[in-house]
Amino acid sequence: MGILGGTGDQGRGLAYRFLRAGHDVFVGSRSVERGEQAAASLAVLPHVVGRVVGDDNARAAEAADVVVVAVPWDGHAETVDGLRPALTGKIVVDCVNPIGFDRQGPYALRVPEGSAAEQAASLLPSSRVCAAFHHVSAVLLADPAVDSVDTDVLVLGDDREATDLVQALAGRIPGMRGVFAGLLRNAGQVEALTANLIAINRRYKAHAGVRVTDV
Amino acid sequence: MGILGGTGDQGRGLAYRFLRAGHDVFVGSRSVERGEQAAASLAVLPHVVGRVVGDDNARAAEAADVVVVAVPWDGHAETVDGLRPALTGKIVVDCVNPIGFDRQGPYALRVPEGSAAEQAASLLPSSRVCAAFHHVSAVLLADPAVDSVDTDVLVLGDDREATDLVQALAGRIPGMRGVFAGLLRNAGQVEALTANLIAINRRYKAHAGVRVTDV
Repeated sequence: MGILGGTGDQGRGLAYRFLRAGHDVFVGSRSVERGEQAAASLAVLPHVVGRVVGDDNARAAEAADVVVVAVPWDGHAETVDGLRPALTGKIVVDCVNPIGFDRQGPYALRVPEGSAAEQAASLLPSSRVCAAFHHVSAVLLADPAVDSVDTDVLVLGDDREATDLVQALAGRIPGMRGVFAGLLRNAGQVEALTANLIAINRRYKAHAGVRVTDV
Repeated sequence: MGILGGTGDQGRGLAYRFLRAGHDVFVGSRSVERGEQAAASLAVLPHVVGRVVGDDNARAAEAADVVVVAVPWDGHAETVDGLRPALTGKIVVDCVNPIGFDRQGPYALRVPEGSAAEQAASLLPSSRVCAAFHHVSAVLLADPAVDSVDTDVLVLGDDREATDLVQALAGRIPGMRGVFAGLLRNAGQVEALTANLIAINRRYKAHAGVRVTDV
């Protein structure tokens, strides 16, 4: 698996959990050095089973069949667009949250394409773009003492085979469950809901996640 | 409590649950007759404890200090705008979901104000507008055999006293819990998430709700 933006909190946390679950992970960053540093720091964490390699985002995209996009929203379009050839035919899992902050706290940014995932899909017409892993707490992911990450992962996409695979990937992480949550055109509100979870975290001093009941 | 649109599935279901919890409920509809019919049909349901009266939306708005708006999105702006005097100074709980349907299923409608709740707030500058009860399953609410409705209710608003009260109201319904989920400007994605829950219901043959973990 490749993780673009593997040096950020969310990407690094997901890399750690997939390494614990026995997956080999290719961690990408904007610079080779930072990718290598991230991989080196992940490799020595407790409970790591899989093998981790670090490089730049382009190499991480080339090296894997499933590529997680966890870059900051700011550089999302540029990064994704630049990797179009490397991502052709691959399952691309966008987990980017277009969120802004001001004095009043977090808020959802308007995205012309509707969502980060739809932006990725429009830039990557030959990739199989899904959206998932928006609401995972980076703090819990990164904490070696946390054995189980108690949350559902809402998985969106128009390609059933791809969403099934991403759901199964989520299910590899103890405590997580992948739940299909609609077509890609309904990804915007799932990304934006991260603003609500941040507001909840602030009010309740929590690391909030989401569970879907009756499923 | 007043419920505007108390003859619709969501409004009627909420009315039933609040009646079971011992609240008196004033059920409004576009016509006096339909409001009265709804009240009469609610009054004879099992486990009803509170007193229910039916009339038109204007009377329901006048009669109560807390008014739930559960009208169809189509008539939302018009209904709310027409009740401005009656709703002055009151706590208005908007639970309207701007959702469209086509052959591919449900999708979120774009709302110029950002959300139905923000539209209500802009039309009702002298009311205390909150947003809540978007994701409750009308099927479960209406089923007399269901004792506990297993879901969190995300409550949004800029008025802490009002959101506290709405959270407490949600907590009066067995199985429900009111969770503060941000300022009104973050209501749009909560309303839109209903499209995802409908997609989940279709995929899993469920009546999906949402729980927030770690809170």
